[in-house]
Amino acid sequence: MTIRVGVLGAGGKVGQAICAAVEAAPDLELVAQVDKGDALETFTEAGTQVVVDFTHPDVVMGNLKFLIENGIHAVVGTTGFDETRLAEVRAQLTQRPEVGVLIAPNFAIGAVLSMRFAEQAARFFDSVEVIELHHPNKADAPSGTAYRTAAVIAAARAAAGVGISPDATTTELEGARGADVDGVRVHSVRVAGLVAHQEVLFGTQGETLTIRHDSIDRSSFAPGVLLGVREIAGRPGLTVGLDPFLDL
Amino acid sequence: MTIRVGVLGAGGKVGQAICAAVEAAPDLELVAQVDKGDALETFTEAGTQVVVDFTHPDVVMGNLKFLIENGIHAVVGTTGFDETRLAEVRAQLTQRPEVGVLIAPNFAIGAVLSMRFAEQAARFFDSVEVIELHHPNKADAPSGTAYRTAAVIAAARAAAGVGISPDATTTELEGARGADVDGVRVHSVRVAGLVAHQEVLFGTQGETLTIRHDSIDRSSFAPGVLLGVREIAGRPGLTVGLDPFLDL
Amino acid sequence: MTIRVGVLGAGGKVGQAICAAVEAAPDLELVAQVDKGDALETFTEAGTQVVVDFTHPDVVMGNLKFLIENGIHAVVGTTGFDETRLAEVRAQLTQRPEVGVLIAPNFAIGAVLSMRFAEQAARFFDSVEVIELHHPNKADAPSGTAYRTAAVIAAARAAAGVGISPDATTTELEGARGADVDGVRVHSVRVAGLVAHQEVLFGTQGETLTIRHDSIDRSSFAPGVLLGVREIAGRPGLTVGLDPFLDL
Amino acid sequence: MTIRVGVLGAGGKVGQAICAAVEAAPDLELVAQVDKGDALETFTEAGTQVVVDFTHPDVVMGNLKFLIENGIHAVVGTTGFDETRLAEVRAQLTQRPEVGVLIAPNFAIGAVLSMRFAEQAARFFDSVEVIELHHPNKADAPSGTAYRTAAVIAAARAAAGVGISPDATTTELEGARGADVDGVRVHSVRVAGLVAHQEVLFGTQGETLTIRHDSIDRSSFAPGVLLGVREIAGRPGLTVGLDPFLDL
Repeated sequence: MTIRVGVLGAGGKVGQAICAAVEAAPDLELVAQVDKGDALETFTEAGTQVVVDFTHPDVVMGNLKFLIENGIHAVVGTTGFDETRLAEVRAQLTQRPEVGVLIAPNFAIGAVLSMRFAEQAARFFDSVEVIELHHPNKADAPSGTAYRTAAVIAAARAAAGVGISPDATTTELEGARGADVDGVRVHSVRVAGLVAHQEVLFGTQGETLTIRHDSIDRSSFAPGVLLGVREIAGRPGLTVGLDPFLDL
Repeated sequence: MTIRVGVLGAGGKVGQAICAAVEAAPDLELVAQVDKGDALETFTEAGTQVVVDFTHPDVVMGNLKFLIENGIHAVVGTTGFDETRLAEVRAQLTQRPEVGVLIAPNFAIGAVLSMRFAEQAARFFDSVEVIELHHPNKADAPSGTAYRTAAVIAAARAAAGVGISPDATTTELEGARGADVDGVRVHSVRVAGLVAHQEVLFGTQGETLTIRHDSIDRSSFAPGVLLGVREIAGRPGLTVGLDPFLDL
Repeated sequence: MTIRVGVLGAGGKVGQAICAAVEAAPDLELVAQVDKGDALETFTEAGTQVVVDFTHPDVVMGNLKFLIENGIHAVVGTTGFDETRLAEVRAQLTQRPEVGVLIAPNFAIGAVLSMRFAEQAARFFDSVEVIELHHPNKADAPSGTAYRTAAVIAAARAAAGVGISPDATTTELEGARGADVDGVRVHSVRVAGLVAHQEVLFGTQGETLTIRHDSIDRSSFAPGVLLGVREIAGRPGLTVGLDPFLDL
Repeated sequence: MTIRVGVLGAGGKVGQAICAAVEAAPDLELVAQVDKGDALETFTEAGTQVVVDFTHPDVVMGNLKFLIENGIHAVVGTTGFDETRLAEVRAQLTQRPEVGVLIAPNFAIGAVLSMRFAEQAARFFDSVEVIELHHPNKADAPSGTAYRTAAVIAAARAAAGVGISPDATTTELEGARGADVDGVRVHSVRVAGLVAHQEVLFGTQGETLTIRHDSIDRSSFAPGVLLGVREIAGRPGLTVGLDPFLDL
């Protein structure tokens, strides 16, 4: 039996990619596409079981209210969820405890796994540094992902009582050794022809371990979204972040 | 309080490296070094708590018998343990259930983590291939580690119902697509100047994840051995492989 | 003063990308776009100095005849040029010796440089292997570029009297050591999420040199085409391949 | 016919490695080994044709004087040659114009080729950054090689009229974007388990080119020294740097 899927924000670039991915999956059926101005009732009329929402912070809370009230599971990539908003969603879910809602800032499975593996490896190596590489139009350095990765690594090392990475540098040209995020060095490379890449380099006596994620296409969120769609019915309540769905 | 450590096979290349590593660790104390011809009683006389054994299949079973009988924990890198030998060690341990014995084929933490991460990631990606790179004096291709890695990945994919990696190749120069290990392609590169390296490359729509391990020095077993030494007292009975000590 | 540029095959995917690249270049002016059915006279009427031709083997010879007769330089990415066709172009150029024609199978500068550097480095290293990595929809293994790269390396080594790369493999799972192209091992990796990548790995005692080219977008031909457009007026006659324009 | 080779500083670590490399080469014959306290006449008595000098700045000038006067070619890895010293060597060579002297700061062929290729590629790409990776005991960041590489790239770009790499960074955590060497960003990674590595990353629309050098053993100077020994007789006068011997 297939899962009946609806898409919110179906007319946008991301929405179209998700519609295409759902249609290409033999175990999923695309039964409703809703865009700005369309009625949310389209979902209930079509017997939708799961809705994917990649819309806008201004409308996502209303969307979720409707979906939860109508017993429809939701997989949400829309941004702007702070603690207040998450609390509100949780409160609504108490009325319909069988409904599942997944809200994730990043659906690229490779990115999620990279961070998890980095966290797991962190305490076993003397040294660790993060190198993130992006196209030169990026405004922030380091990237948000690199910040989070370094913070997660630093926390894991601190919890295990591992000290700071050794570094005998006495003469440094300003900036050569990168930025310091919670004691982890992060280097931001900006080169034309790149998209979004990150390398976490661990090292100890005689060996290094590298975890590298390369994202060359925005479509990389699709497999993670489909994973959410397939599993959400079995995970009632609110889940934040794709990690729990990976059962690592 | 420091742990009192002894080394068996202390005169060999590996044994010397382990002695040096123990001496360099502030929480460990090297209290006994035993080599061919020396009496095992050296360990009991020195009040040794943990012995590291990197000796030879011909003598390791006798060593373990002595250590277990005397309530000394053992961390063993000696090869040649088949099911019969492991069963024998387990039987001896029933007499001294408080003693811990760790027997591992590979103490390089990076190698152990690589394989574990590859196993965890296996079911999330459409494609996976293994590239192992070694010095040109190596006799076997693929390496034993690459064989095991591919087998572990294949098993994880099969268990999750993931099919074989897609491959539209219709014209192949013999060997170009590598060897087939349980449906996973493995490529063996042999180039002067390399030591021992392995890359597991996963890919799905728009993204790839790479797990790479570089070992450039035989001393890379040392951190894993020290980890075993520190933890063995808290893990009575027989443990095979370093993985359980990593608490992943 | 800007160069007045026309594009043949302007309606195709590649043609559109070239038009966009020309328009974005401050020193170039896009004065004529011609597609199937349009008259070639558009170029002469517009005072075109250089025409870029990414069309089809069926029409390219007629296009070139017209361009040469009218004293217009040509930069050609259309395929299908064998020795007979090249001879014909050379013959036409004797009538208009001031006209320049550049015909190249690959305009990606990174690919051209990779092959040149591989050729230059070939004789200095004991070992060399080629690893090419592509999306899994590719039909041939190795890629055409990998074949040519291996052949060029093999020729450079032979010319310098360098023997075959050392290899002590005695036990090989079929295919593990890759394909043999003129004595150079070539490995073809096919993984979803990849586009087109190639790594040439050289090694000698204690060191390795890697030349890697990553192409993640078909637009990678644009900078090479623009280079050809800018330089063609100064290089009368027929040039085959982008290399001579790089002045290495 | 073999070349008769002598080694100065034969007792040191590097000297021993060179002696071993000479002895392993079928076209070379090790006829004289001289260390501190030994007479330089050992070379003349043994009919030495080429002497390799890896000694000390304090003695190298005297060594060279003797070798040049006796018509013996020299391949020199000793450091400390400034313009004054080079001028002195040139002056001595006017007396014996048939003698060749090669003085090079780096004999690792991979390092020399890397820098050359980086220089050749520099003007064809919008972007370039340098990432150098070393063991954590290194005192200076960036490495001397990275400084020189960046300077060579910057000069080649300036000569070709190529502007600075694009960079839209507006929010930077201090140091994230690396150090600025003549307008080229350089990142210095320090991780245990590494030896000496450098990556030059070029990029333009849709493609990147990476030139990477990995040195994992100090013996990597040997092939470059042997190349010098074999070619020096054919290159009379003073040569600084191994580059000219590579005939690129």
